[in-house]
Amino acid sequence: MKKYFVTGGAGFIGSHIVDRLIREGNKVIIYDNFSTGQERFITGAINTGKCTVIKGDLLDQELLDESVSGCEMVYHMAANADIRHGLENPYNDIEQNTIATFNLLEAMRKGDVRRIAFASSAAVLGESEQFPTPESCAIPIQTSLYGASKMACEGLISSYCEGYGFEGYAFRFVSLLGPRYPHGHVFDFVKKLKNDPSRLEVLGDGKQRKSYMHIEDCLDAIFLVANEKRTALQSKHNYQVYHLGNQEYIEVSQSARIIIAQMGLTAEIEYTGGRQGWVGDNPFVFLDVSKMQSEGWDPKNTIEDSVRETVDWINNNEWVMEGRQ
Amino acid sequence: MKKYFVTGGAGFIGSHIVDRLIREGNKVIIYDNFSTGQERFITGAINTGKCTVIKGDLLDQELLDESVSGCEMVYHMAANADIRHGLENPYNDIEQNTIATFNLLEAMRKGDVRRIAFASSAAVLGESEQFPTPESCAIPIQTSLYGASKMACEGLISSYCEGYGFEGYAFRFVSLLGPRYPHGHVFDFVKKLKNDPSRLEVLGDGKQRKSYMHIEDCLDAIFLVANEKRTALQSKHNYQVYHLGNQEYIEVSQSARIIIAQMGLTAEIEYTGGRQGWVGDNPFVFLDVSKMQSEGWDPKNTIEDSVRETVDWINNNEWVMEGRQ
Repeated sequence: MKKYFVTGGAGFIGSHIVDRLIREGNKVIIYDNFSTGQERFITGAINTGKCTVIKGDLLDQELLDESVSGCEMVYHMAANADIRHGLENPYNDIEQNTIATFNLLEAMRKGDVRRIAFASSAAVLGESEQFPTPESCAIPIQTSLYGASKMACEGLISSYCEGYGFEGYAFRFVSLLGPRYPHGHVFDFVKKLKNDPSRLEVLGDGKQRKSYMHIEDCLDAIFLVANEKRTALQSKHNYQVYHLGNQEYIEVSQSARIIIAQMGLTAEIEYTGGRQGWVGDNPFVFLDVSKMQSEGWDPKNTIEDSVRETVDWINNNEWVMEGRQ
Repeated sequence: MKKYFVTGGAGFIGSHIVDRLIREGNKVIIYDNFSTGQERFITGAINTGKCTVIKGDLLDQELLDESVSGCEMVYHMAANADIRHGLENPYNDIEQNTIATFNLLEAMRKGDVRRIAFASSAAVLGESEQFPTPESCAIPIQTSLYGASKMACEGLISSYCEGYGFEGYAFRFVSLLGPRYPHGHVFDFVKKLKNDPSRLEVLGDGKQRKSYMHIEDCLDAIFLVANEKRTALQSKHNYQVYHLGNQEYIEVSQSARIIIAQMGLTAEIEYTGGRQGWVGDNPFVFLDVSKMQSEGWDPKNTIEDSVRETVDWINNNEWVMEGRQ
């Protein structure tokens, strides 16, 4: 029985990876500092008896070294995922993303664990000038500390592949939707509508265009290329990057209307104005996913269905809104 | 009289920047930990009385905060510049490049100093597939920890431009040549020939193609766009990247022959073989410098003349070889 290591394993994406790894007959070590991870997301996994939970921070090198040793592969999903508030404390992104990833790579090197799948982000593409944006687009200008830190992580991983014989996969996601969705615009809108069902304030002019993807489509892609086909092995640099997203996008204003309708409301939408909701909010996110499609993958869920499912999940799990902005 | 802050101001590039800033009538603060910086490089600057030297490390946040405050602009030239031995200690690049740059940006933010020119590197381009390589080339795969760290620094600087209103310039250099040249292939070859004038061992097959640039050409470019024209102000993101190099390249074997001839020797060249001298040695480095040329700049020194001048400078400054590999 193989043992996998999932950082951020109690988080949105990580906990789904944990579930799937266990379903496929593996053992899993969840490494999570529970700053945003949720015990409720991993109760099922723990109950299978196939899962060890380590409450630890990626800045704790000693614990990390001990924990990762003996694993088949690492799914590195832990991150400070709060793009919007990055400017309030720039230490979050460099510590929890860049340095955390470096520490993890060092722990892997010491423990002779050399396969890693990494949750990168479409945010590394900044304000791209090419749509849909392929993996081979021009070197972007970073517009958020979060995007800059994710790009720094990609660079670290690929140089470990080149220098130390690692096998690496970086997945640049659009925003994900689905069960266990923990933050983002659907979350914000549902919460605002709970407080005041008559109106919905939307940051920006509502014309921001975004692509979203269902968590299960995301997992299908990751498991296909990193576990089944192991496509990094076909690359000169033992490293592969994939863009993951939907083949469509949606305006924030449309998404707002879907959310209002799914909640059975008739709220009036008020826009704060401006082409961005906040500094670093990229007005257009739409990825070219043809590289991933050429591996035999296609996203199965539309954006609209995914938004509706996410609204329902939040409404059925109101505890997730406690103490959140 | 304006005051400028030069990190790595006692190093190869930094000390030349210091000299030029003083020549143009400014005051300068040199911030250097003297790990590779040389007091002899700044004796002239110190003697003008326009220069303050602070022996400090960029990891010393408190000293850095105090030192940078009140300056007009920062020239950030300090780095771990040893690409070749990066794999022996991966902490060097993340600490002395990535974290050091983050600390510097934080010091600037606290001190309200918001202009920065940064010594990036052609190494961030990895093994490019486009030659000559423009600023707008495809997102590269990082092949060295050094390149990865310089890309991480670029991302930090551009996100500080976007988020905190900084004005940033990143210059991706090819390897530089000229007076005060402290390390690199000319240095290695001269040193080997001093030890044994009859033969020269060259790492790789000698067919690696590299572009080089004279330090004075590099300085002309930096001062033109970052001080005179301040071109970042024309950019949506208050940030500009320039590729700096020569419009020609040279094979390592040719360069070896020029060096042997300039030393008046007839050494036999022995190649260790392989397309790279070491892991991360990019077999072809040749930058498209047309963006910089469109600003009204042209490199004035050929590679051959620059190599010859560098050989002569090393031979006239043998002290620089003491204690170096």
